[in-house]
Amino acid sequence: MVVDCASAAPPLDTPMQDKLTLMIPGPTPVPETVLLAMSRHPIGHRSADFQKIVKRTTEQLKWLHQTSGDVLVLAGSGTAAMEAGIINVLSKGDLVLCGDNGKFGERWVKLAKAYGLEVQVIKAEWGQPLDPEAFRAALEADTAKAIRAVILTHSETSTGVINDLEAIAGHVKNHGTALTIADCVTSLGACNVPMEAWGLDVVGSGSQKGYMMPPGLGFVAMSEKAWAAYGRSDLPKFYFDLGKYRKSAKADSNPFTPAVNLYYALEAALEMMQKEGLEAIFARHARHRDAAQAGMVAMGLPLYAAEGHGSPAITAVAPVGIDAEELRKAVKQRFDILLAGGQDHLKGKVFRIGHLGFVCDRDVLTAVAAIEATLQGLGLHQGQAGAGVAACAAALAV
Amino acid sequence: MVVDCASAAPPLDTPMQDKLTLMIPGPTPVPETVLLAMSRHPIGHRSADFQKIVKRTTEQLKWLHQTSGDVLVLAGSGTAAMEAGIINVLSKGDLVLCGDNGKFGERWVKLAKAYGLEVQVIKAEWGQPLDPEAFRAALEADTAKAIRAVILTHSETSTGVINDLEAIAGHVKNHGTALTIADCVTSLGACNVPMEAWGLDVVGSGSQKGYMMPPGLGFVAMSEKAWAAYGRSDLPKFYFDLGKYRKSAKADSNPFTPAVNLYYALEAALEMMQKEGLEAIFARHARHRDAAQAGMVAMGLPLYAAEGHGSPAITAVAPVGIDAEELRKAVKQRFDILLAGGQDHLKGKVFRIGHLGFVCDRDVLTAVAAIEATLQGLGLHQGQAGAGVAACAAALAV
Repeated sequence: MVVDCASAAPPLDTPMQDKLTLMIPGPTPVPETVLLAMSRHPIGHRSADFQKIVKRTTEQLKWLHQTSGDVLVLAGSGTAAMEAGIINVLSKGDLVLCGDNGKFGERWVKLAKAYGLEVQVIKAEWGQPLDPEAFRAALEADTAKAIRAVILTHSETSTGVINDLEAIAGHVKNHGTALTIADCVTSLGACNVPMEAWGLDVVGSGSQKGYMMPPGLGFVAMSEKAWAAYGRSDLPKFYFDLGKYRKSAKADSNPFTPAVNLYYALEAALEMMQKEGLEAIFARHARHRDAAQAGMVAMGLPLYAAEGHGSPAITAVAPVGIDAEELRKAVKQRFDILLAGGQDHLKGKVFRIGHLGFVCDRDVLTAVAAIEATLQGLGLHQGQAGAGVAACAAALAV
Repeated sequence: MVVDCASAAPPLDTPMQDKLTLMIPGPTPVPETVLLAMSRHPIGHRSADFQKIVKRTTEQLKWLHQTSGDVLVLAGSGTAAMEAGIINVLSKGDLVLCGDNGKFGERWVKLAKAYGLEVQVIKAEWGQPLDPEAFRAALEADTAKAIRAVILTHSETSTGVINDLEAIAGHVKNHGTALTIADCVTSLGACNVPMEAWGLDVVGSGSQKGYMMPPGLGFVAMSEKAWAAYGRSDLPKFYFDLGKYRKSAKADSNPFTPAVNLYYALEAALEMMQKEGLEAIFARHARHRDAAQAGMVAMGLPLYAAEGHGSPAITAVAPVGIDAEELRKAVKQRFDILLAGGQDHLKGKVFRIGHLGFVCDRDVLTAVAAIEATLQGLGLHQGQAGAGVAACAAALAV
C-alpha cells in the first residue's frame, strides 16, 4: 500500500519561522554557543590572536583523533578533506583497494579513478557491512606488495552502516606497506576512532557532523607513515598540498586564508566536546542509535542496516508498503523535523534519522514521537499506538 | 633613521575588547547584518529553502560579475577558486603566459608548474604594473597558437598595484584561441570588472574581500569559451571539477556539502551591495584610494605602487627612514587598527592600508588620522602636523 502521505497529513496549523529541527546526517544541529562564537567579527588571520586559536584547536583536534600526529584544517567540505588525504600519499598508477558498500564508498572509487589510480573494489551490498575477511584475503594475496593503500568509509552515511574499520586496519597493518585511508566523516565524534591505536594513516572528516558546527571546514589527520608516503607522491596539487599545511601548522598558521569565523566555531565546539568527554560522547551516540532503532522496530518499520551493524550517527529505515519519501515529507510538514531521504536507488525506499553531533535524548525521543504520530495520523501505524515512543524511552533509560 | 616605534608609542591606556578595526586586504570588515545572518541555524543543504538561497545568490553573483554565464561557489579560499579555474580549462604540458609582479603573480606561476603546465613568465618589478605591450608582443609572436591561456592578477595585493586587465584581455582576444584567467580576488567588488565586456574567460575571487564576508567561500566565473576548454582539459580533479558544480547549479544545488552559513552571509552581503549599486561601490573605492594616497603623501610617506597604478583596494606605503613594521605595530598598539605588513622582501619596508569592502569615508579618515597621530607622537612626522588628515579630508570631499 503506497499512500500519498503528504496530502493526508494535516499541515502545520501555523507554520512558525525558526522551528526547524535538523535530524539529517549533516548539517547537524549547532549549539547557540557555537553560532554566537561564529558571529564575532573576523580578526586578521596572520595575527597573534589568531595563532592562539590555531594552536588551541590543533591540540583539541589531536585529542579528538586520539593522535599525537598532525591534524590539518582546510577550508572545504569533507570530500575536500578526503581528496587531500588521498592525493597526498599516492602516485599515478598506484594500486588501491577501495571498500564500497554505499554512496560514499562509490565516491572514493570515482575520486581514485579521476586521479589515475588503479582501483580494486571490494564491494558489499548496500545495507551490509564490508567484510574484513575480503580485505584480509586481498592483502595477504598481495605478496608483491603492490597495494599502496586501502580506502574505506567508516560510517556509510547513505545506508546507516558502520564498517569494522578496526579489523580492516589491522589487516592493513599486517600487510606492512599499505596505508589505511579512512573516511570518518560521520564517525569521528560519534564513536571511538583511536587513530594511533588502530594504526590509521589518513583520517578525513568534516565540520558539519560530530563537530557540531556548520559545514565549511575539512580535517585531515596524517600518521608518520602517511608523511613518508607524501614524500613519494606525484599527484598534482597546490591548495590541497598538505605539506604546505604542515609547515604552516608548525607556526600555528595556515598556508591559505583560513575560514576565520568557522575557526571560532571550531574552538567553541571542541571546548564543549572536551567538557563532555569522549567516553560520554560515544555512549550518548550509541544510546541514541539503540533508541532510534528500538522505536522504529516497535512501530513495525524495518531497519535498513544489517542487524548489529547500525551506525551510531544515523539510522536508515526501510518501511514496507509506505513511500519513505512521502512519510519523510509528512513529518517535515506536520512537525518541522527534517529527516534525510534515501539516495540514488534508495529514494522513496528509505528515510534516515540523523542522530549525530549536538543531539540529546530529548531530540531522539521527539523524532520517534513525531514519526509515530505521523504514522498514527495517517492510519499507517503497524503496531500498537505509542509502542514506538515506549520502546525508544526504554532504550534511552538504559 | 630607524626608530623602535613600538617601544616609543604609548600603549592603549585601557585595552578594550572588540575594538579592533581591520584595515588589511582581507579579512575585511563585515557588516553586522551579515554577521547576524551567518549566525542563524543551518538548514538542510538539499532542501527547497536552501535551493532558493542558491538561486538568489547565483543571480546576484552574475550581477556582480557583469556576466550571464556561470558563477560557481566553492567551499574554499580564493586560491582554491583560482586553482579550480586553472585546472578545469588546461591540460598537462599546455603553454601559459603568467603575469608576475608580486606575491600573487608568483603564486599562480607556482600553481601552474605544480600541474605540469609550461609557464612563460612576464614579469614586472614589484610596485610596477604589468606591461600590456609585453603580453601583446608575446601573443602576436605566437603564430602557432601554442599559448592556451594568460593568467594574471588584476589587483596585486602584495604591492597595491592594479594591472591593466582590460588591455591585456583585449590582446588575448586578438590572439583568438588563448583564454584569459584573471585573479580578481581584491578587485571584484572594488572596481569595474565587466567580465563579458572585457572578454574574461575565468574570474576567481574570495569572500573575505569586496564581498564584505568572512573568508571561506571561493567563486569561479566561467565564459562559454572556458567551458569549451573544460571539455578538453585532462588535469585530474574531483572536488574542484567545475563540471560537477555547473550541473548542480542548474538544479540550484551544490555537488558537495556547501558552507551553508557562509551562504547566508553571501546572500545578505550581496543584497547590501545591490542596494548600494555597482557604480557607487566603485566610486567609493576610488575615492578611498585617492584619500589614502593623499594622506600618506602629505605626511611625507611615499607610496609603493607606481603613480597612477594604485589599487582601489589597498594602498602600500614605503616610509623612508622608518621601519614600516614597527610603525604598523605602533598603530595597532595605540589605536587598535590592524594594518597589513609587507610580504617577503618587503617586510619592514612597506605597510599596507586595506580599504576594501565594508569601508566608509570615516574609516579611511580614521586610519590616516591614526597613522598621523602615531607619527606625531613618535616625532617622526615628516610634514606639517595635521597635513595628512587635511589632505585625506579634501580628497574625500571630491
